[in-house]
Amino acid sequence: MEKIRVAINGYGVIGKRVADAVHLQEDMELAGVCDVITDWRIQMAVLKKYPVFASDDMFKTKMNEAGINSSGTLNDLLASSDIIVDCTPKKIAAQNIELYKKLGKKFILQGGEKHEATGHSFSAENNYATAINLDATRVVSCNTTSIVRTLTALKNAGLLLKARGTLLRRATDPWESHLTGIMNTLVPEKDIPSHQGPDAQSVDPSFNVITSAVKVPETLSHLHYWNVQLTRKTDKEEVLDAFNKSTRIAMIEYSDELAANNTVKELMLAIGRPYGDMYEVALWQDMLKVVGDEVFYAYLVDNQAIVIPETIDAIRALTGIEPDAEKSILKTNESLGVKQSFY
Amino acid sequence: MEKIRVAINGYGVIGKRVADAVHLQEDMELAGVCDVITDWRIQMAVLKKYPVFASDDMFKTKMNEAGINSSGTLNDLLASSDIIVDCTPKKIAAQNIELYKKLGKKFILQGGEKHEATGHSFSAENNYATAINLDATRVVSCNTTSIVRTLTALKNAGLLLKARGTLLRRATDPWESHLTGIMNTLVPEKDIPSHQGPDAQSVDPSFNVITSAVKVPETLSHLHYWNVQLTRKTDKEEVLDAFNKSTRIAMIEYSDELAANNTVKELMLAIGRPYGDMYEVALWQDMLKVVGDEVFYAYLVDNQAIVIPETIDAIRALTGIEPDAEKSILKTNESLGVKQSFY
Repeated sequence: MEKIRVAINGYGVIGKRVADAVHLQEDMELAGVCDVITDWRIQMAVLKKYPVFASDDMFKTKMNEAGINSSGTLNDLLASSDIIVDCTPKKIAAQNIELYKKLGKKFILQGGEKHEATGHSFSAENNYATAINLDATRVVSCNTTSIVRTLTALKNAGLLLKARGTLLRRATDPWESHLTGIMNTLVPEKDIPSHQGPDAQSVDPSFNVITSAVKVPETLSHLHYWNVQLTRKTDKEEVLDAFNKSTRIAMIEYSDELAANNTVKELMLAIGRPYGDMYEVALWQDMLKVVGDEVFYAYLVDNQAIVIPETIDAIRALTGIEPDAEKSILKTNESLGVKQSFY
Repeated sequence: MEKIRVAINGYGVIGKRVADAVHLQEDMELAGVCDVITDWRIQMAVLKKYPVFASDDMFKTKMNEAGINSSGTLNDLLASSDIIVDCTPKKIAAQNIELYKKLGKKFILQGGEKHEATGHSFSAENNYATAINLDATRVVSCNTTSIVRTLTALKNAGLLLKARGTLLRRATDPWESHLTGIMNTLVPEKDIPSHQGPDAQSVDPSFNVITSAVKVPETLSHLHYWNVQLTRKTDKEEVLDAFNKSTRIAMIEYSDELAANNTVKELMLAIGRPYGDMYEVALWQDMLKVVGDEVFYAYLVDNQAIVIPETIDAIRALTGIEPDAEKSILKTNESLGVKQSFY
């Protein structure tokens, strides 16, 4: 079978991770990565021997001046690719869409874009099937991905009635915390409900979900607290069984000294994950509490990594190279080492 | 009328504030403050001309060596006081109780102690009347005080069915953040439900309340997010009316650039509050959202200051010098400048 040629437009926090993940897939080939930067960040792509493209002739000249041997411009990259994963910043992505459409290329947007930009919002365990052979989809954001994963698990078990969540959002990505950090404060999102609830509904309109969100002065991961009203009284075992049906929710134990974001990050580094990435929703098993027909739980979301396996699955769905959601998810999980238990 | 003589045992974060507040009351007299420290902290009491006592003869000698003219020992202070506000650290307070009882002195404990230590837990707007002429009470903690205030307001309006809260707890007090801070992480409380829900029930057993709590890397205040199921569908106006019945809940507007803990702290300093203290629950009026029969809201809790007016009221209740809750609350509010609107 011929490999799908994947272009990555934008080699930032997400783009560089998607590139590495594509590189690991047996049914995909990295056509190249495209950006406008000429500093250490793009040098990492050179080091990995990824074909590097510049967004236009001007940036191609700049790259060449910086000693980066670019393989051409964005147009060259697009011409030789089957599908584009757009990982450029918000406003730029919106402009790119027209170009992809004009060239008749399939494309994937990040969660920062609007649902309307593609008309489809993707989360593998929920709606892979509806994305097959579409021209475009949007992989929902890190927070939304975690919400859809966990609520899908409860829904599939027939337990989900309504979900109310408080989201503690990391203030900024680690690599740019010298630029956009916050310190010794908490910054609520202005609107309650916050946007993540409706965003989860863009994947699955059946969810009764309302979220509130607040930015906190740390960079390691998001932390969600949930109170879910279940369809009936149940026990902890049944709820854990429901979550364990997802291959992308990993259980962690607070009592095993995994008592905070930083210890879980250190665990990811200890098991050898690139960048210490955590693709899974890490849910504290021992903290989870069932009270009558309600369940209370908390989990961590690695905002840089959780969408990476989703993006790989979205590539398979749009291109139709794997019509079976479960098979794609398992391939992706195996290639990236996604697991339900870290040790 | 003779003034009530109040002793403060422990001149720390709470003790020094209670001393200042007692000093402001027309019906009270500060008999003195007692501690074991000889550094700048107790020098502040000397500066304010408060009678300073040492917990025993050894510490009296140490104080004298440090040039602090102590008025005697704890026993001397207790002998000349009508009531003791114990503001000592956790384990020490438990030991003091026996002493107070032996001397037949009324006393007030802080929220860190157990309900059983006094058999009564106090929050002025909820249960002042039940504390009148008791021998002892416990002013519940900062978080619990805020919960009881807000839920009491909803209960009094006939709106409260059940309340579910996520509590973002400041990591430590500002003055000791060089000793016990946390950085770039989030530290959940191990148990869900966290202890604050049951603690609120120690004041008012009718509350159906469940909380989760997480320590965050900032020192300015706690931030609570609540989802309250109401007894019926209503609108925002009715919920705001309910909150406005409390004289110790102040409304703030996110859209007036009060978008985070630090801006609210700066506001407290700007209006001239000592230490920038905020005695009120500061609730974001514009963020508050009613959805059907549910209300979602967020507020800030100054963990160093919110219990101060409560403690003043508890003194009046225990000593019986003011049998009317509302009158005591108004006296306290006026003396400290507690308000429902900051400007």
